[in-house]
Amino acid sequence: MIYELFYWPGIQGRGEFVRLALEEAGAAYRDWALIPEARGGGASAVVKVLNSRSIKHPPFAPPILKAGRQFIAQTPNILLYLGTHLKLAPRDAAGRLWTHQLQLTISDLYLEIFSTHHPLGDAYAYEEQKSAAKRRTKDFLATRLPKFLGYFERVLERNGARGPWLVGTRLSYADLSMAQVIAGLRYAFPKAMGKALRSRPHLRSLHDHAFQRPRIALYAASGRRHAFNNEDLFRYYPELDP
Amino acid sequence: MIYELFYWPGIQGRGEFVRLALEEAGAAYRDWALIPEARGGGASAVVKVLNSRSIKHPPFAPPILKAGRQFIAQTPNILLYLGTHLKLAPRDAAGRLWTHQLQLTISDLYLEIFSTHHPLGDAYAYEEQKSAAKRRTKDFLATRLPKFLGYFERVLERNGARGPWLVGTRLSYADLSMAQVIAGLRYAFPKAMGKALRSRPHLRSLHDHAFQRPRIALYAASGRRHAFNNEDLFRYYPELDP
Repeated sequence: MIYELFYWPGIQGRGEFVRLALEEAGAAYRDWALIPEARGGGASAVVKVLNSRSIKHPPFAPPILKAGRQFIAQTPNILLYLGTHLKLAPRDAAGRLWTHQLQLTISDLYLEIFSTHHPLGDAYAYEEQKSAAKRRTKDFLATRLPKFLGYFERVLERNGARGPWLVGTRLSYADLSMAQVIAGLRYAFPKAMGKALRSRPHLRSLHDHAFQRPRIALYAASGRRHAFNNEDLFRYYPELDP
Repeated sequence: MIYELFYWPGIQGRGEFVRLALEEAGAAYRDWALIPEARGGGASAVVKVLNSRSIKHPPFAPPILKAGRQFIAQTPNILLYLGTHLKLAPRDAAGRLWTHQLQLTISDLYLEIFSTHHPLGDAYAYEEQKSAAKRRTKDFLATRLPKFLGYFERVLERNGARGPWLVGTRLSYADLSMAQVIAGLRYAFPKAMGKALRSRPHLRSLHDHAFQRPRIALYAASGRRHAFNNEDLFRYYPELDP
């Protein structure tokens, strides 16, 4: 089966969590974000799916994965599906649920990261909500970020199995998402993250191992992975990382 | 099996989505929020679980469901589990995934509702972020709320099956959560929601049918369901609903 991914062009965004899973598994997929508008790709492809009246289970927002005739949306939900179908999650029910629980916590974290630069939502430009962003980010770096990183570091410590991963001995989609969030946090808050990771060797190791996976390394070098940029989920504003 | 629910006392919060599922199914469960602190209940019970070093899959935050020896956290994840075990979701894989996708979209909605009164996060009291709350709420009521309600109304319309529910002919946990969000929105924004629901008959019908379910009606009348209040997820500030 050739999967199809619908997501906004020009950014990594939430689509990247899905891409990393597809890439790691070596799955065949068409990434509509990379197809020019003139050939029906880009934002038009997303809008077409969102406006379609013939989709039985209509998605609210991208990313959207087409798998056969099924349209699946919501990042953690797509990964729940791919975890099973691409063997990126444990086979037993309890292991699958635990992997999904971690993914939902990672999702909470990147939502809070988005809120550091857009606490009032994306209806207002960053420049229109700069002072609110400063206040929110101050608490995020002082309280929330250490809480999340401390939690995931503990999960890695408590995983009795050998190796760098969150669940058992094998890499899961949650590891790829965790590595992506660490990369994004390093882009957004280089100073704060430099400090924060010093005392979190397990998270550093997870990040490095994930991006050294042969297929992930090839993908990162392929030119298909967008660079981090300030239209994206993770943004670098020096005033937020003093 | 007797389930155990760990959640903060005195509020409905995210725990209520789990409670409604347990109540509808007539499941036996111990709600630690209702047990006095002196007997190990209340907030102490939650903190004890969060600090435990013996839980193999440590939760990040409540609600937490104990099912046998398994601790399960993250509201949509708990519901994914209960959907299968309490027959509150379709039996086929595609139907279960679609129900979960809806639940994750409902979860996005109630997170945005929380952000109307706490755009800078819960580190700051409402009074410390009132002007940010006003700006965020203005966009929420003008843009986001109609987008979400319009979406769910369309899902209900597009469900070819008879009856008031989101998925097929049978009630699922997503219906209970949707009804709870409608009730919460009516508490928080009585004026705006009065208007918004006028053109959404399917959502009104879903809400009414859910709260008329015999077990849900008994639960609501039991005194065990907390009243909405301004320490909770849904809060009523007249200045935010002008």
